[in-house]
Amino acid sequence: MGDTVDAMKILLVVCDGMADRPAETLKGMTPLEAAEVPNMDKLAREGQTGLMDVIAPGIVPGSDTAHLALLGYDPRAVYTGRGPFEAAGEGVEVRKGDVAFRCNFSTVDKGMNVTDRRAGRISKGTRELAAALNGMKIEDIQVIFREGVDHRAVLVLRGPGLSPKVTEVDPHHEGKVLVSIALAPEAEKTARILNEFTRKSHEILGKHPVNLARAKEGKAPANIALARGSGSPPEVPSFSEHHNGLNGAAIVGISLVRGLCRLSGLEVPDVKGATGSTDTDVKAKAKAAVAALKTHDFVLLHYKATDLYGHDGDAQGKSTFIERIDSALGDIIGSLDNTIVCITADHSTPCSVKDHASDPVPLLIWGKGLRSDRTDCFSELEAASGGLGHIRGHELMGMLTGLAGRNPKFGA
Amino acid sequence: MGDTVDAMKILLVVCDGMADRPAETLKGMTPLEAAEVPNMDKLAREGQTGLMDVIAPGIVPGSDTAHLALLGYDPRAVYTGRGPFEAAGEGVEVRKGDVAFRCNFSTVDKGMNVTDRRAGRISKGTRELAAALNGMKIEDIQVIFREGVDHRAVLVLRGPGLSPKVTEVDPHHEGKVLVSIALAPEAEKTARILNEFTRKSHEILGKHPVNLARAKEGKAPANIALARGSGSPPEVPSFSEHHNGLNGAAIVGISLVRGLCRLSGLEVPDVKGATGSTDTDVKAKAKAAVAALKTHDFVLLHYKATDLYGHDGDAQGKSTFIERIDSALGDIIGSLDNTIVCITADHSTPCSVKDHASDPVPLLIWGKGLRSDRTDCFSELEAASGGLGHIRGHELMGMLTGLAGRNPKFGA
Repeated sequence: MGDTVDAMKILLVVCDGMADRPAETLKGMTPLEAAEVPNMDKLAREGQTGLMDVIAPGIVPGSDTAHLALLGYDPRAVYTGRGPFEAAGEGVEVRKGDVAFRCNFSTVDKGMNVTDRRAGRISKGTRELAAALNGMKIEDIQVIFREGVDHRAVLVLRGPGLSPKVTEVDPHHEGKVLVSIALAPEAEKTARILNEFTRKSHEILGKHPVNLARAKEGKAPANIALARGSGSPPEVPSFSEHHNGLNGAAIVGISLVRGLCRLSGLEVPDVKGATGSTDTDVKAKAKAAVAALKTHDFVLLHYKATDLYGHDGDAQGKSTFIERIDSALGDIIGSLDNTIVCITADHSTPCSVKDHASDPVPLLIWGKGLRSDRTDCFSELEAASGGLGHIRGHELMGMLTGLAGRNPKFGA
Repeated sequence: MGDTVDAMKILLVVCDGMADRPAETLKGMTPLEAAEVPNMDKLAREGQTGLMDVIAPGIVPGSDTAHLALLGYDPRAVYTGRGPFEAAGEGVEVRKGDVAFRCNFSTVDKGMNVTDRRAGRISKGTRELAAALNGMKIEDIQVIFREGVDHRAVLVLRGPGLSPKVTEVDPHHEGKVLVSIALAPEAEKTARILNEFTRKSHEILGKHPVNLARAKEGKAPANIALARGSGSPPEVPSFSEHHNGLNGAAIVGISLVRGLCRLSGLEVPDVKGATGSTDTDVKAKAKAAVAALKTHDFVLLHYKATDLYGHDGDAQGKSTFIERIDSALGDIIGSLDNTIVCITADHSTPCSVKDHASDPVPLLIWGKGLRSDRTDCFSELEAASGGLGHIRGHELMGMLTGLAGRNPKFGA
C-alpha cells in the first residue's frame, strides 16, 4: 500500500533521558510530573499513553542502541559499538567493513602516561592536528581521521580483514595508554593497526606546530589520539526499505544520534541554533521538524538536554527544560495536518542515579480519529495504566506506521 | 490430560472486524461502545477483558491470517496465500503439495482485455461451466475446478513439483489478462501450468453452451477463469493435535474461514440461514453453536457482517449488528453448562478507514469460577485497562485451554 492519499505522516519526538524517578527536590514527583506541560497533557488526554521498555525489561539502553530500537532495528543483533555513528555524525562516510572509533586528543608524558585525557580542553587547532593524521596508510589500511567538537575526533579504518572486536587504547582515566588486544582471532590485524596508529599519532602530533605553540603558552599539548568505542556500521536495510518505503528526516543536534540517523538513511538537515545541549534553540528545532514534514513521511525530533540534566542530577533544571519542549510543541501542533504525534524518551536518566537506567519510558501516541484512553496527563505514573499497555521499543515504528495506514495487509 | 471430568468447554465468539475507532456519527464512540450489549457487558463485569494484537503490534491482519493465529498457529511461519482456504471452504479437498487459487469467472474481449471481472455478475450456469474445466490435465498436473457463489470459483492444481510462489493472472481491474510469473525457480512449472490453464479456460468457456445462451440474451459471457491468491495448505498439526486432543467445531458462513477451519480439522456443519453476510440468521448460528458444544470441547462461532459494515463505513449499521449478536448470545448463555465464553474480533475494520487496520481488538473471557477484573462493560476503551492486559492472538487458545483445565502441567 505505502503512501496512499489517506496515509498519515508521523512526528516522533524523543526527549533524551527524559524518563525519571521521584525526586526529593520535586516533592516526590518526577521532572515530567512536576513540569507544567499543557500541550503534552492535552495530547495524552485526547490520545493514548503507555510504557515502553526501549530494548527489553532490565536492559539499560545507550542513546545509540535505544535509537536503533526506536527506528525499528534490533540492537542486540546489529550493534557493535558507537564508533560508526560518531564518525557519520561528523560527516565522515562510513562503509560496510570499516571499523570506526570515537577519539580524544589527549596529553601523554614521555612514559606514555595520560596526564590529561582532554589535552587541556583544546578547542583551537584540532583541524590542523587531524589533517596531519588523516590519509596515512598502515599496512594496507587507509586511515581517515577528522576532528569533532573541542578535544573530540573520529577515526575510521578502511581496508580488508578488519573487525571491531578489539579493546580500547584510551585508559578512561590518568594512567598508561593501553595496548589494544584482539578479542577474536579475526581482529588481530585491527588491534595491530590500531596500536600502530596510536604510536604514530604520538610521533606526528608531538612535533606538530600547533602543539609547539601550545607548549610556549604553557598549555597541555594534544600529543596523542586515543581511540575507543570501536564498531562497524550495522548491516541492516535502510529505514525506508525497513518500513514500506517510508521516507524520513531527523532534527537532531548531537553527533551520535545524527550519525545513526544518517547511516539509517534519514535526511539530517542542519538547524541553526541546534546545539545538542541546554542552550539549544528548542523552538527552531520544532519549526524545522514542521518544515521537514512537508517533504517527508516521518520526522524524528530529538532533544538532548533532558539527558544532560539527568546526568547532572538536576531535577529542577530537567523539569524546566521539559516545559520548554512542551511550549515549542504547543507552537507547532496546530499546524500539523494529518499527522500522528508520538512523544517519548530513549531511556530513563534518573536524577538520583545521574546515569542511564532500565526503568521503562512513558509513551504518548495521538492522531486525529485514533483511539483515546483514560489517561489525563503525560507522566510516568499515568502512562503505567495507559491504553497502549507496555510495549518494546522495536515495536513502536510498526505501531506508528500501522496507525498511519501505511502497512500492507497480511493475508486476505 | 485432555477431557477430564472437570475440564470446561470453550465457546469462542469472533465478530469479524468488530474492533473500531471513535466514529463521528456515533458521538465519538466506537460501534461497540455505542451498542446496547447488556449480555456482553454482564460477561465483562463478571469476567475479564483485555486487548489483543491478533498477529503482532502494527501488523494489519487478513481474516485468514488472523484466524490462523486465533486457532493457535503462527501465520508468519505457515501462511502462503488464501487459495487453499477458499477451496476447502467450497468443499474441495486440498492436500499437502497442492497449490490452490481463488478464481473469478470474467469476461474478456478478443484481445484478452478484461471487460468485466465478474462476467455480468453471473449467477446461473456456473456449475456447468466449472464442470467443463474440472478434471483436465496439463502436463502431469490434475486440474480441480469448482464453482462458488455467483462469479466465484476455486482452482486446485495437484501433482509433482508445484509451488505457490507465482504471480496472479487476474489484473484486479479492467485491462489485459496478466501472464503469471514464477517468483522463485521452483515455481516455474506452476506459472507455466497456470498460464496454460488460463488459455484453455478461455478456449473452452468461449464456446460453451451457457455462454452462447448468454450472448443471445445480451449478457456478458463468462469466457475465462482468472486466478489469484495462490497458496498451499499450511503444514501444521491438526487443531486437535495442537491443543492436547481438544476436538472442535466451527459455525461460520464465509468460505474463507470455513475452509481454514476445515483444513485445521474442525468440524464445520452447515447451518440453515447462515449466509456470512448482513442477512444471516444470527440466532440460528448461536443455537447451532450450543448444539455443537454438546459433542465438541471447543466451538468457534463466527459472525462476518460486522466487518462488512466496517468496509462500508457504516458505523450505525455495525453497532446495530453488534446488538443483534448480543441478543443472540443472551438467548444461549443460560444454557451453557461448564463453558468458558470468549468474545473478540479477528481484527479492526474502522469505519473511518473502511479497511482492516492494525489497532488491537478487545477481548473478553468469562467462565464460572474464573477470576474477575475491574472492567464494567465490553468496549475497546474499557478493555485497554482490563485484567487480561495486552496479549497476542497466538497466545489465546493456550490461555483458554489453560483456564478450562485442559493443559498438562509443565514440570513437577
